[in-house]
Amino acid sequence: MTVIKAQPYDYELPATGKIALLIIDMQRDFLEIGGFGDALGNDVQQLRSIVPTVKTLLEAFRQYQLPIFQTVEGHQPDLSDCPPAKLKRGQSSLKIGDSGSMGRILILGEPGNQIIPELEPFADELVIPKPGKGAFYQTNLESCLQTQGITHLIIAGVTTEVCVQTTMREANDRGYECLLVEDATASYFPQFKEATLAMVRAQGGIVGWTASASQVLSALAMFLKR
Amino acid sequence: MTVIKAQPYDYELPATGKIALLIIDMQRDFLEIGGFGDALGNDVQQLRSIVPTVKTLLEAFRQYQLPIFQTVEGHQPDLSDCPPAKLKRGQSSLKIGDSGSMGRILILGEPGNQIIPELEPFADELVIPKPGKGAFYQTNLESCLQTQGITHLIIAGVTTEVCVQTTMREANDRGYECLLVEDATASYFPQFKEATLAMVRAQGGIVGWTASASQVLSALAMFLKR
Repeated sequence: MTVIKAQPYDYELPATGKIALLIIDMQRDFLEIGGFGDALGNDVQQLRSIVPTVKTLLEAFRQYQLPIFQTVEGHQPDLSDCPPAKLKRGQSSLKIGDSGSMGRILILGEPGNQIIPELEPFADELVIPKPGKGAFYQTNLESCLQTQGITHLIIAGVTTEVCVQTTMREANDRGYECLLVEDATASYFPQFKEATLAMVRAQGGIVGWTASASQVLSALAMFLKR
Repeated sequence: MTVIKAQPYDYELPATGKIALLIIDMQRDFLEIGGFGDALGNDVQQLRSIVPTVKTLLEAFRQYQLPIFQTVEGHQPDLSDCPPAKLKRGQSSLKIGDSGSMGRILILGEPGNQIIPELEPFADELVIPKPGKGAFYQTNLESCLQTQGITHLIIAGVTTEVCVQTTMREANDRGYECLLVEDATASYFPQFKEATLAMVRAQGGIVGWTASASQVLSALAMFLKR
């Protein structure tokens, strides 16, 4: 049995199931100057700092020919999949669907809605558009995971306390063994990232496990040599 | 327009939709000495302190004849709805389905799985059993809300960072306007409660609003006098 040295205890790599990498919302809207996150006054550098680590994970999963999924948060151009509550929320000057410097804000297919170039998916890697914070709501993620027999998820991306934890909680309820990579996830608010990591692994890992990317990668290397 | 004085800004009571009270998991398993929470070493007093406030909310919604939903976390006796990951999680001595001092742990219908006597639902108040942390996963909550035309949810219960926030995030993705009642929700870990309240109302209320029970009740009283 191969394990990832994780918190709150070792994470067992699957003997029969399959493991996949799930990267949440590493899209230009949230990570680039001029995007939605930046326009709302957030410091995108908080998120950009994890890009090299996420890239290392992505390349390792590619090398090992393990499944990789990325998500983007975005809506249809007519906003038919955007609840009124989400549209009017926040009392900010920039709203979903408005024109920004990278096209319409959080609209599928717009320049800002693309994965950042450093993590651009290969043609055979699935990018799942999602209208909510959780990647299981109104998407085909669950059926894709089931079809491929995936039981274990290594999770990375942004932002930790919003889309990442919402997705991890959905996955946990559905029985997936989830590990959140500590140095491959980030928030505009570092204290929220730390609080989320602590909540995930509290009470014996009530939502799952956390570990560093190097711990994940060294265990995977051993696991795949078997 | 009637508003609840809330954070991060006023919460508008619905002009056309309907508002409901959603009370999460105020069950003996989590709140009583000898229950699952207590057996795992948690201080149930942290949770019990909110009981009078939740009761006040419950009685007000009854008085105003507004819809009330409660949830309990529990599984079928054969555990067929409990993912293996959840069953083995935590490395604790007491597992889901084991016999405890209030019957089998987290099993539907067992004494420990009942709502605490102080908040016992009336016969016409729905109690929704849920196998996960989120109240929308594998339950009929969403169809019940839709059938009744409910658009606004006032949320209370335990524990703040686990079942309450998971449910609130699911509801937010589904377009419900959610307000979490600050003094009617609790965690075994007060710092997690505070962090969750802060995460909910960050970035212009990215998950929703928070307010005290007295703020909710005084706005409701005005709202219903119209």
